[in-house]
Amino acid sequence: MLFERAEYLARVARAKASMQARGIDVLLVASPANQFWLTGYDGWSFYTPQMVVVALDAEEPIWIGRKMDAVGAKFTAFLAPDNVVPYPDKYVGSETLHPMSFVVEELQRRGLDAGTIGVEMDDYYYTAKWHQVLTDGLANARFVDAFLLVNRCRMVKSEAELQFMREAGQIAAAAQQAAFDAAAPGVRQCDVMAEVYRVTTAGLPGFGGTFPCKPPNAMVGEIASAPHLSWSDEPLVPGDLFYIELGGVRHRYHSPLSRCILLGKPSAEQDRVTKVIVEGLEAVLATVKAGVACEELAEAWTNVISRHGVEKDSRIGYPVGIGYPPTWGELTASLRKGDKTVLEAGMTFHCIPALWADDGGLVVSETFAVTETGAECFADFPRELLSKA
Amino acid sequence: MLFERAEYLARVARAKASMQARGIDVLLVASPANQFWLTGYDGWSFYTPQMVVVALDAEEPIWIGRKMDAVGAKFTAFLAPDNVVPYPDKYVGSETLHPMSFVVEELQRRGLDAGTIGVEMDDYYYTAKWHQVLTDGLANARFVDAFLLVNRCRMVKSEAELQFMREAGQIAAAAQQAAFDAAAPGVRQCDVMAEVYRVTTAGLPGFGGTFPCKPPNAMVGEIASAPHLSWSDEPLVPGDLFYIELGGVRHRYHSPLSRCILLGKPSAEQDRVTKVIVEGLEAVLATVKAGVACEELAEAWTNVISRHGVEKDSRIGYPVGIGYPPTWGELTASLRKGDKTVLEAGMTFHCIPALWADDGGLVVSETFAVTETGAECFADFPRELLSKA
Repeated sequence: MLFERAEYLARVARAKASMQARGIDVLLVASPANQFWLTGYDGWSFYTPQMVVVALDAEEPIWIGRKMDAVGAKFTAFLAPDNVVPYPDKYVGSETLHPMSFVVEELQRRGLDAGTIGVEMDDYYYTAKWHQVLTDGLANARFVDAFLLVNRCRMVKSEAELQFMREAGQIAAAAQQAAFDAAAPGVRQCDVMAEVYRVTTAGLPGFGGTFPCKPPNAMVGEIASAPHLSWSDEPLVPGDLFYIELGGVRHRYHSPLSRCILLGKPSAEQDRVTKVIVEGLEAVLATVKAGVACEELAEAWTNVISRHGVEKDSRIGYPVGIGYPPTWGELTASLRKGDKTVLEAGMTFHCIPALWADDGGLVVSETFAVTETGAECFADFPRELLSKA
Repeated sequence: MLFERAEYLARVARAKASMQARGIDVLLVASPANQFWLTGYDGWSFYTPQMVVVALDAEEPIWIGRKMDAVGAKFTAFLAPDNVVPYPDKYVGSETLHPMSFVVEELQRRGLDAGTIGVEMDDYYYTAKWHQVLTDGLANARFVDAFLLVNRCRMVKSEAELQFMREAGQIAAAAQQAAFDAAAPGVRQCDVMAEVYRVTTAGLPGFGGTFPCKPPNAMVGEIASAPHLSWSDEPLVPGDLFYIELGGVRHRYHSPLSRCILLGKPSAEQDRVTKVIVEGLEAVLATVKAGVACEELAEAWTNVISRHGVEKDSRIGYPVGIGYPPTWGELTASLRKGDKTVLEAGMTFHCIPALWADDGGLVVSETFAVTETGAECFADFPRELLSKA
């Protein structure tokens, strides 16, 4: 088990307080990240339906999943055996049986089929079909949308979680270094990324890495104008600008880190724009502390760039932590104008300001924790356009 | 563009024929794999809602997604500019606006808001909320479940698709070889997996690799009794059995390959059980050809293992191809008793029979294409328990 039982119970208590405040008796958690946070359950099994149930009057949550994965729940979740409930394989990939029918029956068996049931209406893994089967099967319950309820509870990290994110930050820095070391004219883009993956997977001598929940956004040249495309197997050529947003990972906790590598000497504009980005980023970091609102961080950025004559109104960051595909973002807040979310010590963000220069996007990002007095960055890596001639 | 326009149009025609057979006028495609197959659009942007619309009376599909990702659509999709429809960023992560409201309005603008609309009710990315917003907004339409409609159209691959899967198979074999070369007492599990990732990302000298849509299922020791857990950063010790199911990838086309590495000399039982697996696998491969049903492949396996006194009734494989998280499976059929799906030339499967021996799971798998006369395996790698003393 990654965390103490007491830590898991404190998390469950936090979720229950939020449920109570919203009149929810039973919470059905579809999000694998939220399931992991609440129970410790961790396995690449969420391609088959599984559900975590939090009931106000039960101490522990219940994990319901495929029979073969109940074994994994015993290895990873803090739950008593009674609270790991396997469904038989006949529910898998069947045209007549759906795993959510099994969930309905289990809720009925436990008397959790009435009152107000919260569901994560817009979570990636909560499909229209799941909702249909559940609402048809639990006609006595009232369903309400509890999307992001648990995500919000996850925002403040414990010391143990922060430690994983610090380690992930060190891995991220090592991976950026590996990319820089590998990048050279004639080297294929995929061979640079192979070095990134080698390092994020191996980690460091003191602690290993693992797989990230998403691939790096890593693009060269004009392709980088599309922010979510990917590298190719073309060889790098002199002058290429390699945009790399990657994440180090420890036990599903991600610390993203973004830099650009230029194969050549920066143009005056690339140099100037990078300096604006770094000045803006550092203004944001200097503004961070408990009690400040997300929009104030965005404002710190906007003030810097407008002083340099740049206007850009898109968000410059988001809360980060536990990552399951398709994202390591927590989906709860944004560093942008109008977001009134108040920072608390232990919250963690990826601040990723980017600007366009000449024919390429430039970026310098940091992942940090909010403290009572400032920001603690997880990586220690030069804040610059990394150039090699 | 990865494929010719004619190939994309032939795919769309296949989807339309299936729509027509089921009385569907407009198909809303949420699955990123199906979107990629229908349009070529490929980007890690599906964490924000995006939709592909196939209308019976329009030649091309329509891609609707976030404004910043419309740039990626221009690079990757075969669509005319008019059929790439960006929505503004105010729809992203908003509590009041939902991207599906924009989809509703776009369908209204194009007169596609009546008749019968097919939706992928149980697709990972088609959330309960999407369905709610769409059905509320399109009150004149009749909604029907078209889950797996496009997945079924994808099953038969073109020669160009098969070529990517062949290359992916070669990468998978190289990655298994790299794992074997790296595994040794004292080496951390994560360092073995780092070699796997290095090879799957770099690919081979003739063609590069890329990221897989899911991490390898790779476990050592008792953890391997849970099929979807992961490696750790513990060092390997003599006697360890490393179960590795991984995928080589070319342009989102996956060829999985599974083997076990034993750090030591196989026990008599490990040896015997591996021979049963290989005999069973080869009996399956010998049965494969166009016209045979999936359940006949399962029967070939069952006949072999029952002759050896083993009983096991779980499925031994599934169709494979384009992979987006969380799976590279096509979700349409299973190699198991009762599955009457008839094999056609160009269909591709991962046959992954596993059995338990002593205290560990053993596996030998192959990914293959169905031909008129047999099976074409994509990897060329020894079918055995790989042991090194």
